[in-house]
Amino acid sequence: MTEQCTLLPDNPCPIGRAVDIVGDRWSLLILRHANIGVTRFDQFRAELGISDNILSNRLAKLVEAGVLVKVPYRDDRRTRHEYRLTSAGADLTPVFEDLARWGQAHTLSGERCRPAMKILHSTCGEELAEGHYCAHCGRTVERAEISWYRPWRSRTPFALAEPVD
Amino acid sequence: MTEQCTLLPDNPCPIGRAVDIVGDRWSLLILRHANIGVTRFDQFRAELGISDNILSNRLAKLVEAGVLVKVPYRDDRRTRHEYRLTSAGADLTPVFEDLARWGQAHTLSGERCRPAMKILHSTCGEELAEGHYCAHCGRTVERAEISWYRPWRSRTPFALAEPVD
Repeated sequence: MTEQCTLLPDNPCPIGRAVDIVGDRWSLLILRHANIGVTRFDQFRAELGISDNILSNRLAKLVEAGVLVKVPYRDDRRTRHEYRLTSAGADLTPVFEDLARWGQAHTLSGERCRPAMKILHSTCGEELAEGHYCAHCGRTVERAEISWYRPWRSRTPFALAEPVD
Repeated sequence: MTEQCTLLPDNPCPIGRAVDIVGDRWSLLILRHANIGVTRFDQFRAELGISDNILSNRLAKLVEAGVLVKVPYRDDRRTRHEYRLTSAGADLTPVFEDLARWGQAHTLSGERCRPAMKILHSTCGEELAEGHYCAHCGRTVERAEISWYRPWRSRTPFALAEPVD
């Protein structure tokens, strides 16, 4: 058992074990934002409109599960902590990309013509297929070359957050 | 807007819209079981150990969202209903397969040597890569050819449930 493994003794189903860790609305939304570089308590709170106690609870649970890690940083005056994806957390990225594809295909936002979220190969700007295959470059690309284009937030795609361990 | 689309007016993020529909523990566990052919209220209840009222609530929500559809069937004495995946619901399968891969890689069950869940190409029996590519057959396979091997439940892999619309 490595540090990034969580021991959940009685569930033989790996889907069930994953759901026990990330299968709630707030954990999923927190991790979505962690993928695009949100790391600080105040940022998560402002982006998600989540109450302090629920946010604390979920962040603690995700840290305990080895999906996020608490890293100190120096503010003007004192040491604070931010929450960064571990590589175990980064390995959940395909789940979010599948949810994005599904949400795009099977749900509609109020403005139907709003440009869609896209998963891009940062290097060439082309859209990636499932499994991060770039048809333009003819290869499967690494996390460090992937961006999420979320046009309702920014014209510039968000490079996926780099995991720390 | 087709029948399988759910209009969620104020959320531009497709991940957020997907999470609003399936992002809770019970909905995810219900849909996991729907993928391996569970269709009836009593079966879901027995498999999941979920209370009647929560199960009713989640099934109704998933039907309303167009992920499941209520289909009549004839019991000995009377007409009952079962819950079948729609093709929109079947399109969520990659989410569960990613969760299975993640749960396998980053969480452990109590018995470390328990054989793992596998996503198989039913025709040749080989394990499928992400995106349902069969390296043995050299092609991406369709849903109708995919099985989930869940050895703690059955030695025979479960063919993925066929969607109805």
